Parts: sequence; structure tokens; C-alpha cells
Amino acid sequence: MSGFPFFSSRWVEPPAGVEELDPAQLAPGFAAGAVACGLKPSGKTDAAVVTATSERCDSALLLTPNASAAAPVRLCRESCDTGAIRAAAVKAGNANASTGEQGMRDSVAIQRAAAEGLGLEPAGVAVAATGKIGEALPMDKVLEGIRGAAARVRPDGGAELAEAIMTTDAFAKRCTVRCDGVTLSAQAKGAGMIQPGFATMLCFAQTDALLEDPEPVLRSAVEGSFERITVDGQMSTNDTVLLQASGESGRPLPAGLLDAVLLQLALLIVADGEGSTRVGCARVREAASGEEAERAARAIANSPLVKTALFGRDPNWGRIAQAAGMALAGEELEDLGPDHIDAAEFESEEAEVELSVRLGRGEAAAHVWFSDLGYEYVRINAEYTT
Amino acid sequence: MSGFPFFSSRWVEPPAGVEELDPAQLAPGFAAGAVACGLKPSGKTDAAVVTATSERCDSALLLTPNASAAAPVRLCRESCDTGAIRAAAVKAGNANASTGEQGMRDSVAIQRAAAEGLGLEPAGVAVAATGKIGEALPMDKVLEGIRGAAARVRPDGGAELAEAIMTTDAFAKRCTVRCDGVTLSAQAKGAGMIQPGFATMLCFAQTDALLEDPEPVLRSAVEGSFERITVDGQMSTNDTVLLQASGESGRPLPAGLLDAVLLQLALLIVADGEGSTRVGCARVREAASGEEAERAARAIANSPLVKTALFGRDPNWGRIAQAAGMALAGEELEDLGPDHIDAAEFESEEAEVELSVRLGRGEAAAHVWFSDLGYEYVRINAEYTT
Repeated sequence: MSGFPFFSSRWVEPPAGVEELDPAQLAPGFAAGAVACGLKPSGKTDAAVVTATSERCDSALLLTPNASAAAPVRLCRESCDTGAIRAAAVKAGNANASTGEQGMRDSVAIQRAAAEGLGLEPAGVAVAATGKIGEALPMDKVLEGIRGAAARVRPDGGAELAEAIMTTDAFAKRCTVRCDGVTLSAQAKGAGMIQPGFATMLCFAQTDALLEDPEPVLRSAVEGSFERITVDGQMSTNDTVLLQASGESGRPLPAGLLDAVLLQLALLIVADGEGSTRVGCARVREAASGEEAERAARAIANSPLVKTALFGRDPNWGRIAQAAGMALAGEELEDLGPDHIDAAEFESEEAEVELSVRLGRGEAAAHVWFSDLGYEYVRINAEYTT
Repeated sequence: MSGFPFFSSRWVEPPAGVEELDPAQLAPGFAAGAVACGLKPSGKTDAAVVTATSERCDSALLLTPNASAAAPVRLCRESCDTGAIRAAAVKAGNANASTGEQGMRDSVAIQRAAAEGLGLEPAGVAVAATGKIGEALPMDKVLEGIRGAAARVRPDGGAELAEAIMTTDAFAKRCTVRCDGVTLSAQAKGAGMIQPGFATMLCFAQTDALLEDPEPVLRSAVEGSFERITVDGQMSTNDTVLLQASGESGRPLPAGLLDAVLLQLALLIVADGEGSTRVGCARVREAASGEEAERAARAIANSPLVKTALFGRDPNWGRIAQAAGMALAGEELEDLGPDHIDAAEFESEEAEVELSVRLGRGEAAAHVWFSDLGYEYVRINAEYTT
């Protein structure tokens, strides 16, 4: 879990010729910096800024649809020009969620402080947060932290950005890769869809590719990665993914590069899931439609019975048949037996295993990655106290 | 958990004047018997029959909609006259699920054997099962068991029926109650929506009330009880609820009696949930619609974060806000804070506690009962091996 080599999962196929660089080094045209402002009791860095230094910056921003979204997410929804975000201001240790009007005022102040420090318009600055819910921010410290981070941004600030956004993460999740003359750097955090006391998956990605319409590219990569993982089936209040493109390389983004990077980051999040010991992939085939295949795959991946079976090295196909049948309640389904379900890999000691189900209803397929469920999950989530 | 007094939950309000009788004694017009045929490794009783002895018998039968339903459920769907079921043949220890065509043939043979033993038409005999999935039935033993059970049915066979249908249940769940000259007896099993290696909630209820159209009465009682509980969010492949009415009392079923009995049985199932230490009730108020209230209540009740918080005595309202927000993804929702959410009872040591959420969107309300999630759940489900 040192993060090197970055591309380590059996499920990730990076484009041919991809090269891994020092993850501290951001893609050309970007800079980042982080400081400790006192939100994390450990005293570690917890306020960070990432910004474009290039003339041009195209961007795409994806936010959680959770109706209890945190103040920074609400502010981004309301006030950001999502196609032209030059910078993001992030804090870790306090999610600024369920904090009402005061939380919104605080987010506005943070956005303004970052904009001032970087010489930008507020609408060009996204705000993100992760940490405890329902606690007021110590705003003097936070504003000082965001200003300090803005003052120390530098091109090799990728590693400190990745560290500053960690909360209960066991390891930092970041990379810088190069392919066909284009550099892509990315930093993510998350150890569960939602963490003890609070939430969140965050991801920042920067590239010097020329990318005039980054939104569909980001959306497609997220659909194949962060949207296909589950630790506890819980949607966060703070999830935020930001892609920025400086265009400095003058080249297009190599096909599959962003997909491979986000998928590897997503799998690192599952592997770092609370108390997780291994990652499973639920593959559903022969479904009547893609929607049906996905519904069945999610039901299997979120079943605590399948998750405990993964933990217990138990190729329990009966639980998989039950979960698939629940997802298809009311439909006609063949009696699913060992001929339809293969969970033999559960018995292995591999860290990444697959199960597959044939529904015998059509041609569609879908897959979802998930963590196992063991004692550590209960310990982490039951013993944490607000 | 001795089962006496039967009405023990704060959430159950039996009709005034209700009297609890010996649960071995079935309602007038019914008889039951059980034997051990060797399905349970423990050697305990595992084959049972309950039958009407009265001239008249009106009935209603509710079955799981799971698309991977077990053979006995499929057979009931296809061949039973659900309004005129005089008897049920049940086995515990083998669910006869995911057993293909052979499983269907075996269910037909069991139905016929019970019908012959009782002198009934096969269409008047329901078949039910609970236990391991995907294992062929030792049919010689099972047929001998069903015939033996049919031969020993007697009016005071309620307790042995309740014991024979247990699998991982820690205690039997049954009662016989009398109110306004009407007797109602009921037997249920279940310790989780689904159990290690396999499934199932079963419930048999008998009354001497005159009940010409039992289906809506049963459906309403089930909607307020078994449909409002969750242990692990998993829908079983074998769930079966049968209500039979002999009419021998010549009186109508007292209002609320069946509802109270089924609700108490449902709460006993949650309390007996795998590794469960306490029962929670998630109450959602001020929703825009009943459907919305129910969706939010279910999301809260099924959230592993809320369930571990219940186990850990942690009044973690942030997790409740997150789960409600997830259920309402994409909708407008006030920022839910301590003014909206009350989880103070989580801190108590009570076995039955409530949480409530006001969504501030309308007048509708809903509630769902759920078990906590602790180490025992993981131990039971991870260490069980097929």
C-alpha cells in the first residue's frame, strides 16, 4: 500500500506506454500547498489548496446528490462556474455538514479567502471538506490555514495535498503518470463511502492535456470507477471530484488514461475501506438490461451476507442467489445454482477476488467492486463516539 | 425471552381484555404435530404439519416475491388454492432452495404425502421450508417425517410446531391469545431476514374467528409487522405467512388482535436477529409522502453506520442525517441538525429504543424496526461455512 507502483490492481488496464512519475509533481500548469491549521487532533496538515498556474484551465466538477449535502457542496452547486474552476480549497477534520446557515457563511468566507490569496474570482474556487459532522468550524484557524496553503502552493505540492485531505485513510492515494506526452496527476481520499462520524470521498485530478469539454470525460471515468464501488452502501454528504486541464501539453488526453487512474484510486479506497481485508468484484452477466445487471450487482455487493462470506473465505453461492433474487423480486428467474454462480475465488487468500452470476435473461452485464465485512468494521464504527 | 408474557414490547398495543393462554393449545378447529426426521444435525424435531380439523377453513397465504424463491414457495404460487388452505407441511434444516427441477418434484411429493396423510386434496396443502440452501433433500427421511407428523396432529400441538420450525432461532416464538370470545394462536420463526447459509421467516396463525375474506386482514397485519422489520436488509427466498380461520367461535376477529400478535412476533424476530443485542425503531415524520417517509426510514434502519451506532450506544445524529439525505438524493431538504433528529435514547441501556427525524417537507410519517450490528453478527455470518 506504499502507492508504488500505482497501477497494482488486476482490474486496471492503463494505456500502453504509461509511465509513473513522482506523485509529488503535479501536471504542468498546476500547484498545490498544505498547512496544519489545527482541525486534526494529530496536528497533521489539514488545510490545502490546489490551483491552476497556467493561463487556461478547463474543468469539470461532480458533487454528491445527497439531500443532506454539506455546506461546501451546496456552495459549489450554487456559486461555482463548474467549467472554469481554477482552484480548490479543502479542509480535513471537519466536514462542515449539518451546520445550517452558519456553515454556508463559513464556506463563503473560505472560498473568498482562497480567491483573495490566489488572486482569483470566488466563482473560480471550489470548496471541499471532509471530517466530522455537525461541528462549527474554528473559523480563525481555518481562514489562516487556507491563506497559508494558498501562499505556499508549488508545482511539487501533490504529495502534501494528498496527505492533507486524509482522515481515517490508512495510506495516501495519489499518482502522477505520463502517456503520449500528456501528464495526469490525481489525489484522492476515502476509506469507505462514509467514515466514522463522517463522510467522504474526495478526488482532485490535474492534467496538461488539452481538454475543451472535460465534463463528459470526467463523468464517464467516474461512472466506471467511483460509481462502481461500495464499502457500506452509504452515499456521502461531501463527495467531490474535480478535474482540471491546463492544455499546456497541447495534446489530447490519451484514451483510457483518466479511466485507469480513477479506477485504481477507487480500488485503493475500497482496499482501505474501514476494516477491509480484501476487495471483491461482483460480475453479473446475461441480464435482461444494463439497469437490471447493475441492480443485481449492487444488491450482491451490498449484501452483508455476501460481504461476511468474502471475509470468511466462504464461496457461499446461496447468499449470492438470494441477493440477486431480491434485486429481481417479482421477475421470472431461473433457479440459480452452482451452474450459474461462481464464487470459487472466495476460498483463495488473494486480496482481489471475483464472483460471477449468469442470470439467463439476456445479454447485458455489469460489475461492482466491494469490500468485505469483518470485525474491524464493527469495531471502527461502534466504538467511535460523537 | 421465555415468551411469557407474550406481549412484552413497548410498541405493541393489544386490544383491551386480551388474555394469554398456553401456547401449546391451538385455536379451536386446528391441530398440529411434529417429529424429528433427521434434517437437523441436533436431532431435534424438524418436520411438522398444521391442519384444520373444523369443517370450514378460510385462509390467506403470503409468499416472498424473491425471484430466487425456493421450490416450496414456487409450488404454493403455482398449485395452492390460497383462500382454502386446510394444512401446511413444513420442514426445517433444508430450505429446498436453488435445487432446480428436482426440488420442485420433491416439493410436490411432500405436498402429496401430507395430503394423503390428512385425507385432503393437494391444492389445500401449503408447503414451507427453512434451512440450508442448495442441498438435495433426503426424501425418504422427509416423507417419513411428514407422514409421521400428519399422523400425530393434536389440538395442543402448537408448541411442538413452533419448536420444529426453529433453525438458528435462540427461542421459540409463539402464542395463544383470547379476546372477545375469539382465540388466535400463532407460531413464527426467524432470526434475521435471512440466516447463515440460509433464509427465512415463517409464520402460521390459526383462529376460530369467522373470517370470510382473510387476505386483506392478513395483508394489513403483515404490512404493519413483518414488512416493517429489518435485520440485514435481505429478502428471504422462503418467507411464508399463513392465516387460517375455522369460524368455530361464530364471532368476528377482534379489531387489532392479529396486528398485535404479528407485530409482537415480528419484534421477537428482530430481537432474535443474528447477534442482535437491542431493537431500534426509526421514526420519520414531516415527509412529503408516505412513500418518502418509508424510503427514509428504511435507509436509516438499513444503514450499517446507524446499526453500529445503536450497538455502540452512540446517539450519532450525523449518520441519521446522512442516511435520510441519501434516501432523498436529488430532493430539496433542510439541513438536518439536532433540532430535526432525536437519537438520545441510543445512549440508554434499554432493549427497545427509538430515534426520530423530522424532514420538514410535509405531514407524512413512517417507521421501521431494526436490529443493531455488532461483533456477533460478523462472527455468525463469517464463520458459518457452506
